[in-house]
Amino acid sequence: MSSGFFQPISGMDLPRFAGVPSFMRLPVMDLDHARIKDVDVGLIGVPWDSGTTNRPGPRHGPRQLRDASTMIRAQNGATGVRPFDLINCADLGDVGPNPADIPDSMQRITAFFDDVLALGITPLTAGGDHLTSLPILRSLAKDNPVGMVHFDSHTDLYHSYFGGTMYTHGTPFRRAVEEGLLDPKRVVQIGIRGSTYDNEDTDFAKSVGIRVIRIEEFFKRGLEDVMGEAREIVGKEPTYVSYDIDFVDPTFAPGTGTPEVGGPNSFQALEVVRKLDGLNIIGADMVEVSPPFDSSGGTAFLGVSVMFELLCVMATHLTTR
Amino acid sequence: MSSGFFQPISGMDLPRFAGVPSFMRLPVMDLDHARIKDVDVGLIGVPWDSGTTNRPGPRHGPRQLRDASTMIRAQNGATGVRPFDLINCADLGDVGPNPADIPDSMQRITAFFDDVLALGITPLTAGGDHLTSLPILRSLAKDNPVGMVHFDSHTDLYHSYFGGTMYTHGTPFRRAVEEGLLDPKRVVQIGIRGSTYDNEDTDFAKSVGIRVIRIEEFFKRGLEDVMGEAREIVGKEPTYVSYDIDFVDPTFAPGTGTPEVGGPNSFQALEVVRKLDGLNIIGADMVEVSPPFDSSGGTAFLGVSVMFELLCVMATHLTTR
Amino acid sequence: MSSGFFQPISGMDLPRFAGVPSFMRLPVMDLDHARIKDVDVGLIGVPWDSGTTNRPGPRHGPRQLRDASTMIRAQNGATGVRPFDLINCADLGDVGPNPADIPDSMQRITAFFDDVLALGITPLTAGGDHLTSLPILRSLAKDNPVGMVHFDSHTDLYHSYFGGTMYTHGTPFRRAVEEGLLDPKRVVQIGIRGSTYDNEDTDFAKSVGIRVIRIEEFFKRGLEDVMGEAREIVGKEPTYVSYDIDFVDPTFAPGTGTPEVGGPNSFQALEVVRKLDGLNIIGADMVEVSPPFDSSGGTAFLGVSVMFELLCVMATHLTTR
Amino acid sequence: MSSGFFQPISGMDLPRFAGVPSFMRLPVMDLDHARIKDVDVGLIGVPWDSGTTNRPGPRHGPRQLRDASTMIRAQNGATGVRPFDLINCADLGDVGPNPADIPDSMQRITAFFDDVLALGITPLTAGGDHLTSLPILRSLAKDNPVGMVHFDSHTDLYHSYFGGTMYTHGTPFRRAVEEGLLDPKRVVQIGIRGSTYDNEDTDFAKSVGIRVIRIEEFFKRGLEDVMGEAREIVGKEPTYVSYDIDFVDPTFAPGTGTPEVGGPNSFQALEVVRKLDGLNIIGADMVEVSPPFDSSGGTAFLGVSVMFELLCVMATHLTTR
Amino acid sequence: MSSGFFQPISGMDLPRFAGVPSFMRLPVMDLDHARIKDVDVGLIGVPWDSGTTNRPGPRHGPRQLRDASTMIRAQNGATGVRPFDLINCADLGDVGPNPADIPDSMQRITAFFDDVLALGITPLTAGGDHLTSLPILRSLAKDNPVGMVHFDSHTDLYHSYFGGTMYTHGTPFRRAVEEGLLDPKRVVQIGIRGSTYDNEDTDFAKSVGIRVIRIEEFFKRGLEDVMGEAREIVGKEPTYVSYDIDFVDPTFAPGTGTPEVGGPNSFQALEVVRKLDGLNIIGADMVEVSPPFDSSGGTAFLGVSVMFELLCVMATHLTTR
Amino acid sequence: MSSGFFQPISGMDLPRFAGVPSFMRLPVMDLDHARIKDVDVGLIGVPWDSGTTNRPGPRHGPRQLRDASTMIRAQNGATGVRPFDLINCADLGDVGPNPADIPDSMQRITAFFDDVLALGITPLTAGGDHLTSLPILRSLAKDNPVGMVHFDSHTDLYHSYFGGTMYTHGTPFRRAVEEGLLDPKRVVQIGIRGSTYDNEDTDFAKSVGIRVIRIEEFFKRGLEDVMGEAREIVGKEPTYVSYDIDFVDPTFAPGTGTPEVGGPNSFQALEVVRKLDGLNIIGADMVEVSPPFDSSGGTAFLGVSVMFELLCVMATHLTTR
Repeated sequence: MSSGFFQPISGMDLPRFAGVPSFMRLPVMDLDHARIKDVDVGLIGVPWDSGTTNRPGPRHGPRQLRDASTMIRAQNGATGVRPFDLINCADLGDVGPNPADIPDSMQRITAFFDDVLALGITPLTAGGDHLTSLPILRSLAKDNPVGMVHFDSHTDLYHSYFGGTMYTHGTPFRRAVEEGLLDPKRVVQIGIRGSTYDNEDTDFAKSVGIRVIRIEEFFKRGLEDVMGEAREIVGKEPTYVSYDIDFVDPTFAPGTGTPEVGGPNSFQALEVVRKLDGLNIIGADMVEVSPPFDSSGGTAFLGVSVMFELLCVMATHLTTR
Repeated sequence: MSSGFFQPISGMDLPRFAGVPSFMRLPVMDLDHARIKDVDVGLIGVPWDSGTTNRPGPRHGPRQLRDASTMIRAQNGATGVRPFDLINCADLGDVGPNPADIPDSMQRITAFFDDVLALGITPLTAGGDHLTSLPILRSLAKDNPVGMVHFDSHTDLYHSYFGGTMYTHGTPFRRAVEEGLLDPKRVVQIGIRGSTYDNEDTDFAKSVGIRVIRIEEFFKRGLEDVMGEAREIVGKEPTYVSYDIDFVDPTFAPGTGTPEVGGPNSFQALEVVRKLDGLNIIGADMVEVSPPFDSSGGTAFLGVSVMFELLCVMATHLTTR
Repeated sequence: MSSGFFQPISGMDLPRFAGVPSFMRLPVMDLDHARIKDVDVGLIGVPWDSGTTNRPGPRHGPRQLRDASTMIRAQNGATGVRPFDLINCADLGDVGPNPADIPDSMQRITAFFDDVLALGITPLTAGGDHLTSLPILRSLAKDNPVGMVHFDSHTDLYHSYFGGTMYTHGTPFRRAVEEGLLDPKRVVQIGIRGSTYDNEDTDFAKSVGIRVIRIEEFFKRGLEDVMGEAREIVGKEPTYVSYDIDFVDPTFAPGTGTPEVGGPNSFQALEVVRKLDGLNIIGADMVEVSPPFDSSGGTAFLGVSVMFELLCVMATHLTTR
Repeated sequence: MSSGFFQPISGMDLPRFAGVPSFMRLPVMDLDHARIKDVDVGLIGVPWDSGTTNRPGPRHGPRQLRDASTMIRAQNGATGVRPFDLINCADLGDVGPNPADIPDSMQRITAFFDDVLALGITPLTAGGDHLTSLPILRSLAKDNPVGMVHFDSHTDLYHSYFGGTMYTHGTPFRRAVEEGLLDPKRVVQIGIRGSTYDNEDTDFAKSVGIRVIRIEEFFKRGLEDVMGEAREIVGKEPTYVSYDIDFVDPTFAPGTGTPEVGGPNSFQALEVVRKLDGLNIIGADMVEVSPPFDSSGGTAFLGVSVMFELLCVMATHLTTR
Repeated sequence: MSSGFFQPISGMDLPRFAGVPSFMRLPVMDLDHARIKDVDVGLIGVPWDSGTTNRPGPRHGPRQLRDASTMIRAQNGATGVRPFDLINCADLGDVGPNPADIPDSMQRITAFFDDVLALGITPLTAGGDHLTSLPILRSLAKDNPVGMVHFDSHTDLYHSYFGGTMYTHGTPFRRAVEEGLLDPKRVVQIGIRGSTYDNEDTDFAKSVGIRVIRIEEFFKRGLEDVMGEAREIVGKEPTYVSYDIDFVDPTFAPGTGTPEVGGPNSFQALEVVRKLDGLNIIGADMVEVSPPFDSSGGTAFLGVSVMFELLCVMATHLTTR
Repeated sequence: MSSGFFQPISGMDLPRFAGVPSFMRLPVMDLDHARIKDVDVGLIGVPWDSGTTNRPGPRHGPRQLRDASTMIRAQNGATGVRPFDLINCADLGDVGPNPADIPDSMQRITAFFDDVLALGITPLTAGGDHLTSLPILRSLAKDNPVGMVHFDSHTDLYHSYFGGTMYTHGTPFRRAVEEGLLDPKRVVQIGIRGSTYDNEDTDFAKSVGIRVIRIEEFFKRGLEDVMGEAREIVGKEPTYVSYDIDFVDPTFAPGTGTPEVGGPNSFQALEVVRKLDGLNIIGADMVEVSPPFDSSGGTAFLGVSVMFELLCVMATHLTTR
């Protein structure tokens, strides 16, 4: 049961446009805060995009996601879950990146998440581009490889770019498999679509056992069926959830750097997360939200709505484990 | 049969971008116009948003809806109805509000609609925020409570805000039930979704007999089934239709103050109105269109497209009664 | 098999934001280029909109489509087709129009396409408003009438506007039938919707045998069924494909001049083209993309994604014929 | 002295966002209105842009100018003039153009202004592209050539475009001189700047005696000195004022089709008109306001602010003559 | 001398796009914070706009101003002042308003500022519409009337709106004079311009001795001369500074509800504040920043740049008094 | 004298919105083009922004600058210079960067410019962020240090960021001085303003003899006087011109990553370049144009207008030397 200290401010008391915008109007806490050990789930921003090969912008994501998150209320209307009653949540601030140095930034991120995990906090991260997931997994999976449910329009399994560059937002999960952070047999990628360079990424997926579910299959079989398979693939073992906002159709989520047309709508964007209920989720991220391409703010609002669904399944899991 | 005086100007004669923009290119008439008694349906603007608890803007709605409405032609492509041939329609202008005084504005609105009703005109209103519906109902239902089909992502059934404020856009239908303007047993709310504060509103709904159909049920049962139930709930008695544009998914209707992701698309937005055909509609409104958040104008265009569907079912009803 | 000269530049080599933007990063060639005779499919811009009766803008379409097309990669993710390996493609530049003289512009367009056809090149055109299709058909069908699959929310079959003006973007296919360029029995129009002036256009369609499939029928029967009928209508004879971006719902494609709400989504926008596989396509166009109303650029990106699907079915046809 | 009928609605009575937007909240009158003969100055929209050689859009100008004009109040703060007290003003609606036929549109415009002049009304026009001025001058100057103060960044004195097209927005005043509508010795062009094709336009100006004041001279000599010369050039004889919004720097007026950087600011935009006080102004226009490129609406607001200044000097002249 | 606790976070350490955005990256403190008594100047948000008679939006001002303020660095480049070294500054959060109840909101604001003053903190406020200044003055001037330097395009001295409404953003200083909060002989209003209803406001100003400097006088005499007079008018006694962003030309500050063209540029916007150096400033506000009309964010950035100039002159005064 | 091959396409022949957009409608040439040795000035894009410490975006600059440049005509209206008649100009395309690797990108840039210089071509570059200037200077000044006229709101002379990162857009000229590429005694920086971290940069400037002219001095002394001093500082020796678009006030140039309010207007933006006439300019750049923050495209248009002025003074110098 959450204490009052960790309750978000209600829009019935303070209008949603008022106040300094923290994630979901939760208290902002440094890692040396007196009550940090009471935190169950920490919402963390990782504002960088140095691994972006096309249109940058996700470095501005965490701030816009915080702003949009002031629209989130205490109860999940669809499932009835009240996460802030079940567990203690807090905004742990942003990891300070070095926008002009990728290795330095990756080390800063891993170090921050090492500290978070040492405090017993489950992280729910707002990126940042998709390279963000790699330094997080280096912390989360440093002892044992984890499974992953990966929502995206791209596999992010390429070997390298521009004649040999190994660390971009198109390569994190290739690296994560190579580094033994992901158990490829327990990885499922959902929503893949768009024109492609070639089959290098999907050939790699096949070779290591990653299951790739393209959008045509997703629409043909239906959401329930596909998510049922996804649950079986990751099973009851520790699982990471990585949610690239470009999984969703770019009309619903224009604020991203590498959109691919023909994706799921906003209702499906929420529903796929609800179907993760009961899984052993040890961390999750929402990445590639790019405010400069999100003039209406709708992408960020969808992003935090998905984050709230993630938080609800995480809270249920943490309460019932 | 409508006279030529009440025919909208055709885009074949005057391009759609030309001319002073009245609702659907109809004649603009004051309530003291010589031919006012010939009017069957009056399109009325109520430009205010003082009851808004979050992002204001609907005070600019009527003007943008008029502008967008110049795209509407004379015939409903889906149903073949030609409303301007069936009945006499006119733009009755805007109710002049007092943006800095809620009670004064509500009295002005009720007084205007009292005059409209006294002239035998059925009102089709463009708001304004959702508090608009309350002073209209005070006029329409002053003698007998009416039924209501209510499209929205919110119930608008809360008791009060900010420590006791009773009149906001989140409370109109709580007040309308309390004041005996709505017969709760003949009220159905469709499309409800999003995170919520708690169950105060839905508990109230249950306690008085209002039927709430959440979006998950809407998508699961399908539009036809749900609308069939809605028709049964309101029956053949006088019914008001209140259409909050945030019923529609915010990607299709971003121009609104309190969006909730995961709603119906634009085709469904029109279809639900077509299913009201034959009901005894005594008035209708389109509310919460907020131009400052509608940079493309698409929300207003969807809003007037819905208004045209409302007009078609109203015209059919008025002709066949 | 395509030679290296005709291969698009890969985003793995040169980032997608770099370089002068030609269609799909293909070589730009004048009609007097040394290798022009090796070209199988030519991508051609026709930047004009003088036939527009409402909101202008498509004259800016080709440039924005080129810009957006730098996001297209070499392989179709859904079908596996690699068009640039199958055939030689090139950007043939823009037809230079006279924006202040409709007849002069139409003659310039027809003359350009006469030259293109004389070189044995199959044209894939980026408009321009929908009047563009008429001068193209005057070239393509000068000897024999052709069939047409026409995606649109409007029939574009009106007789005239503004008291007798015969050449606007609402009349091209009326003229094409009258001039014997289209075989009306082999013409199918898909996606028609929105309010209409009257039945003049559909009466004409009926009188000559054009099949009109309204959006309600499209959604009710389903995409596969409808497209099956379309394939039967045009059969194995030479067929033109004309794709007005306003076929797609305006939320997915706001950048157009005469939007109609309630249309297909972006996945369906692509799927309908995939169902044209195997038809005898002798030319195709993407028209009515209007950048001034496309602030996010999403319409253009969807437009070129559709053009890539068109190119894939054209390449397959040209390879297997 | 104006009667109450012709008084604009005060924002103290009806908020500025309310009501159907006519020019400056004046009554809208057809030319057959019972009180049309009482009108001194008629505000007229000419919504077309078929003569545009680059970016279209001014066909949407009159509607946006009307919308923005609801911000104009009854009194000129700088000069103290109250035009609506001095003379009777009305919104005479729009001339219906034929967007697909330039000669037809020009005839419609001239015919409309012939009627207006026959009623003794002085016209203040909202365009439309700059070709608009030519058919107006054909009406205003049909008996005698007039003088002109012309604010613009371009001379609009070119002979023809695109291989011989004589009627575009770059040629109206060449035609007007050729047709004897303008007395070139009494024409002054102020604000000319930007890169140019060559000297064809200024050579023509020199050859007929038109005075061209480039922006460098304008800034160097100062506004007062330049406007003093302008007053001398046109003298006391009948003078037309043509104000192209691209006279103003495009940062202050981005909503236009052919901007040129380095122009006057908004204060100077108003001041130049105030310096016309006392001239014998027989008509004026504000052209090239292009809403699709005016996302903030600031260009239209500046445009109507200039129109109000024009109205004030016209009202003073009409009162004191 | 400021302690390290009160130093803003440097962009050299944490990139400016990172971190929860407080005013100028200062610590956020509740009024019951342990170190609250060390605060010299408190930056306070008052997010409301219920007194707005035209276009609402300033309720969103404080949040956007905080976001933009992360661009402010520690040192004034023009004057060399380092305010955070001179005094302790903190972000005191927002006053929680009641958007649907003007009197309630005014009481909440006055109560908050009473507490702030009781702690010995000098307030620098971010509004909010201009009615904000009245409840602040009720706290600041409750014992003695104060002087005021008022930058604005409007006098805000009207008696009432809409038939008797006394509390709007057009009336605060009329009320403040009536309530004895302002000493009218020590009040100067700078930048007044635009069309006006009549002379009611300036007649009142004259009758009580308020000095009104219109923009024409401002530009004619020059900034230095005008500001010298302003300094003499307020003298050495306690002075409030109220800065309505619509003082600045709307091209430089489009994000506001009632713009008036023809105002000062951004350099002048800063310079007028620098000329207040040495005055006895007991509080200041920046009001009418309206994010919904500020798509680029430039208005907010200019607003916080002005706030930084205000802070610098306040810090200098507090240090040298 | 330029040959016809190098003449830009006239808007009188092909409308400005038509055609593949090269810089100023010049021919696009690879460095191995048959006529490459005839080129006098090469316009080159460097699309990267990896050195950006705040808001990224300039990687999209070259493409948008090319698009905007289609508005540039053949003759300078202010000076009468016709650069394309004086010298041969061409678009040499973009340097292909590696967006995820700063050292690799810098080497690519230097290598490209080495090739350009070897061909005897004078480069006029469109960036890219300001770090772009460093790898260019490594090529241009590899034998002898050069002088520089630097327009900017920042000195870009900082030592390092984020705990030691040496290569960002805030450090290029510190590095250039250290590497002996710039002769600091012949360097002048104009327009410096905004809040600053401290005096580290200006202390360095003083220590090596760089002349820093702040904006206050610029406005006080006037443009002519300041530019006269600038000419004396660089003298007749080889001089580089680096023009950061944030030199201009952000209202005139919002599309940039680190704006500072209170800068020059657009007329002054052009005039400062005209005052460079006659200097020995061996290369120039326009940097920090960031399309994601330039929704109207006005920044890019101003940017290319400045580039045209640069080209004019370069052409005059190359012709008269």
